[in-house]
Amino acid sequence: MQEAKGHIWLTREDARARVLEASRFSPRVERIAVAQSVGRVCAADVASRQSLPNAPSSRWDGVAVRYDDFAAGMPDTSGWREGREYAFSNTGIGIRGDYDTVVRIEEVSFDAEGRISFAAAPAQRGALVMPVGATLEEGEPLARTGQTITPELAALLAGGGWAEVDVYARPRVAFIPSGNELVDAGRELPLGKNVETNSLMAAAKLRAWGAEPLVRPIVADDVGLLVEALCEAVEDCDIVILNGGSSKGTDDCAVPAIERVARVLCHAVLMGPGAHTSLSVTSEGVPVIGLSGPSGGAECTIDWYVKPLVDRYFGLGFNEPPKVRARLLAALDLSQRSSGSKVKMAVRCLLARSSDGFVAAPMGVLPESLRLQYRGGNAFVFASGVGFALGEEAEAELRYPYAFPPRAEGLFDDLESHALVL
Amino acid sequence: MQEAKGHIWLTREDARARVLEASRFSPRVERIAVAQSVGRVCAADVASRQSLPNAPSSRWDGVAVRYDDFAAGMPDTSGWREGREYAFSNTGIGIRGDYDTVVRIEEVSFDAEGRISFAAAPAQRGALVMPVGATLEEGEPLARTGQTITPELAALLAGGGWAEVDVYARPRVAFIPSGNELVDAGRELPLGKNVETNSLMAAAKLRAWGAEPLVRPIVADDVGLLVEALCEAVEDCDIVILNGGSSKGTDDCAVPAIERVARVLCHAVLMGPGAHTSLSVTSEGVPVIGLSGPSGGAECTIDWYVKPLVDRYFGLGFNEPPKVRARLLAALDLSQRSSGSKVKMAVRCLLARSSDGFVAAPMGVLPESLRLQYRGGNAFVFASGVGFALGEEAEAELRYPYAFPPRAEGLFDDLESHALVL
Repeated sequence: MQEAKGHIWLTREDARARVLEASRFSPRVERIAVAQSVGRVCAADVASRQSLPNAPSSRWDGVAVRYDDFAAGMPDTSGWREGREYAFSNTGIGIRGDYDTVVRIEEVSFDAEGRISFAAAPAQRGALVMPVGATLEEGEPLARTGQTITPELAALLAGGGWAEVDVYARPRVAFIPSGNELVDAGRELPLGKNVETNSLMAAAKLRAWGAEPLVRPIVADDVGLLVEALCEAVEDCDIVILNGGSSKGTDDCAVPAIERVARVLCHAVLMGPGAHTSLSVTSEGVPVIGLSGPSGGAECTIDWYVKPLVDRYFGLGFNEPPKVRARLLAALDLSQRSSGSKVKMAVRCLLARSSDGFVAAPMGVLPESLRLQYRGGNAFVFASGVGFALGEEAEAELRYPYAFPPRAEGLFDDLESHALVL
Repeated sequence: MQEAKGHIWLTREDARARVLEASRFSPRVERIAVAQSVGRVCAADVASRQSLPNAPSSRWDGVAVRYDDFAAGMPDTSGWREGREYAFSNTGIGIRGDYDTVVRIEEVSFDAEGRISFAAAPAQRGALVMPVGATLEEGEPLARTGQTITPELAALLAGGGWAEVDVYARPRVAFIPSGNELVDAGRELPLGKNVETNSLMAAAKLRAWGAEPLVRPIVADDVGLLVEALCEAVEDCDIVILNGGSSKGTDDCAVPAIERVARVLCHAVLMGPGAHTSLSVTSEGVPVIGLSGPSGGAECTIDWYVKPLVDRYFGLGFNEPPKVRARLLAALDLSQRSSGSKVKMAVRCLLARSSDGFVAAPMGVLPESLRLQYRGGNAFVFASGVGFALGEEAEAELRYPYAFPPRAEGLFDDLESHALVL
C-alpha cells in the first residue's frame, strides 16, 4: 500500500464527517404527481386539505332516520315513506343532512305493501354515523419535510386531497469511470483488459437512494482528460464520483486531477476495502469522491461516503449504521498482514439472530449456496491487530439497507472452515 | 362484525397457507439487459462466461520482465530495451505473454541515456502478477434461479460477460377498486363520497415486489358489473385483487361476485385489521383476493396475502415474517371489545432495540412526530382476550420490508399515554 508523502489519511468516520461538513447543497424543489411520488423526499410539511368523511356517513348498510322520531319510543311507522322519514344508507356513504342516525338493514323489514318497520329503535342519536373528519381531519399533518414517501404515505396524501406534492429534485450525481484497462460492459473484452461494471452498480444504488446518476464515458489515465471531465461534472452536478485511477503505483492520476478542481480533505482512508478513496470539495461546496476502483471496494465505499452525501442533499442528518455485538463463528486471522498497516479491514459477514443475541460468520467460510444468496454479506466486522479468535465477540455493523438479520438456527451447519486468513 | 351463515373464517396463517397451496402459476421468462435487471428475479442459474483477469495482469504500476533473467542474480541491464527485455505494465492491465513477473516502478530507475536499472531483483517468478481468473473464474456460479438481482449482482453479471439475463416476467396483478362511495383521487370530492387511494398504495407496493400492477376503473357495488370486471381480469392476469365491497352490511357484493368466478377458500380471516378479506382461486389456479376496503386494512392485508403470492409466482418459498419477544411500553386494553369476537387484532407498534432486547409501543401512544416518522409502525403485536399489561412481554412480528429496528434509547421519552384502549 502506497503511502505517499504529504498524503492525508483519515479514519472512515473522520473522513465522512469532514466531507459532510464541507459540502454545501442547494436542493431544488419540484412539484410532481402524488401517484409518481413513492421513494421521493418531501420538500415541505404537508397537511390534509380536507376532512374524511367530508359529510356524516353511514358505518353500516341500513336506513338513515331522525333520532327524534324514536326519542319517545318506537314510533308508528305505517305512514313512513322513503326519502321523507327515512332513506337507505350504504356503508361509507354520506347521509342526507336532515337525518342523524342509522339503523342496520338487518333490523329493518318491509311488509307486502312496502311499509317499513324496525326490530329495535336506535340506541342513541348518531348511532352508526361516522362524523366528519373521523378518518382524517382537515389541517391534520400528513408528512414532514425530509420524509421519504412510502406507498402508504402516497395514498394518504391523495386521501388528504393532494394530487401533487413538493419534493426535492433528485440530486445529480456524476459517475466518471477511469482507467486505461477498462472497456464498457457488453462489448467484447480484449485480452488484458477489464470490464467497467462499477457504473452499473453505482447507478442502481444512486437511483434507489433517490438520486439521478449521470454515468460519463470511461476516461483514460491522463490527468488532463480527467480534469476536463471533472470540470464539466462539478459545473452541473451536486455530487461527483471519479472511479478508479487511485490504485497502487505512481501512475495515479485521480488525486492529481481532483487537486486541480477541489480541495482534498483526505487522500485515502484507514479502512479497507477501498482504502484508496479520496474525499474532496470544490470551492462551491460540491463533493468530489475519488472512489476506489476494484468492485469490492467500490461497493462498500459508495455506501460509506456517497450515501450520506445524498441524504444530506435532502437535508437529512447522518445516522450511524446500526451496530450489534456478535459472536464470531470463525476466527479472523490477520497475522499474515503487514504489521505496519494502520488500515482496518471491514470483513463482510453474514450476521444472524441466535437464541441469545447475534452471531456472525465471515462470507469466506460460508458454503457456496450462502455466499451466493447473501453475496457481499449483511454486516461488517472490523478487524485490526491480530484479528479475532473463534467464538470471540466483536462489533458488527449492518450493511445498508439494514435488513433484519435471518435466524441463525440451521443456517451455519455447513461452514467450510472455522478460520479466515486475511 | 357480520358473521353470515355458511361463511368460512380461517386464521391468517391458515388462509395464507390455503391460498398458496391452491394457486397455480405459470411464470413467463424474458431476456432483459443486465443494466435494467436490478430488482428482477433470475429465471435460471447464471455462471461466469469469462475469467477475470482474462490474461496475467499487473498488480502494480511497474515493468514486466522475465524472471529467468534474474535467476542468477541481478543481470547487466545496460543493453536492455523497452519492448524486448522489459515492458511497462500498469495496474490491472494484462502483461505480454513472454513476460512473467512485474517489478514495481518505485524500484526501477533510468539513467540519462534512458538505460534501465533495478534497485532489487524480483523475489520470485510471477511476483506482482495476477493470474487469469484471480477475480472471477469462467464457469463460476454467479446467481441462482429465484435470486433477486441487486446492484452488486448486476455488476457481477456484467463482469461475468453477460449483457442480458433471463428473468421472470413481472406477474400481472389486476387491482379492481369497487364501491359506490368511491371517486378517483385527484378529482373534486363530492360531499358524502370518499377518495379511492388504495390503488395508489397497492400499485407502488406491487411494483416494489417485482409485479406489474394493472389498476382497473372503479366498479360500482353491483354483482353483475363486478363479475364482468373479474372475468376479464382472471383471463389475463396472474393474481386478481378486488378491493372493497366486503364491508359491513348485507349489500356485500364482493363475495357473491367472486363466487361466480372462483372457489372461495375463506370468506373472512380471524385477524384484523382487514378481517373482511376473502381468498379464492379460479379453476385455472388464479388467486382472487377480496381485499379489505378501509385503507388501514388494505395496507396490512396486501402484505399478508398478496406479497406471498407474488413471491410464489417467482418460485420462492414462503418465509414467516421475523418475530421477536418485546416488552410493551403501553398496556393494550381490549376489555371494551365485544367478548364474543374471535378476531385477533394486529396492533401496529414501533419496535425498537433496547439494551437487553426489544421494546414496542403501540403507534397510538406515540407523540405526533414519531407517528408521522414511523407511520403505520414497523411491527405488529397480536392482541386477543383482554390484551396486555404495561411492561408485559409479547410476540412482535416485523412489518414488511423487515427493516432493522431503531434504538430505543431516548426514542420513547414523550409517550402520550401508557395504555391503548382498542
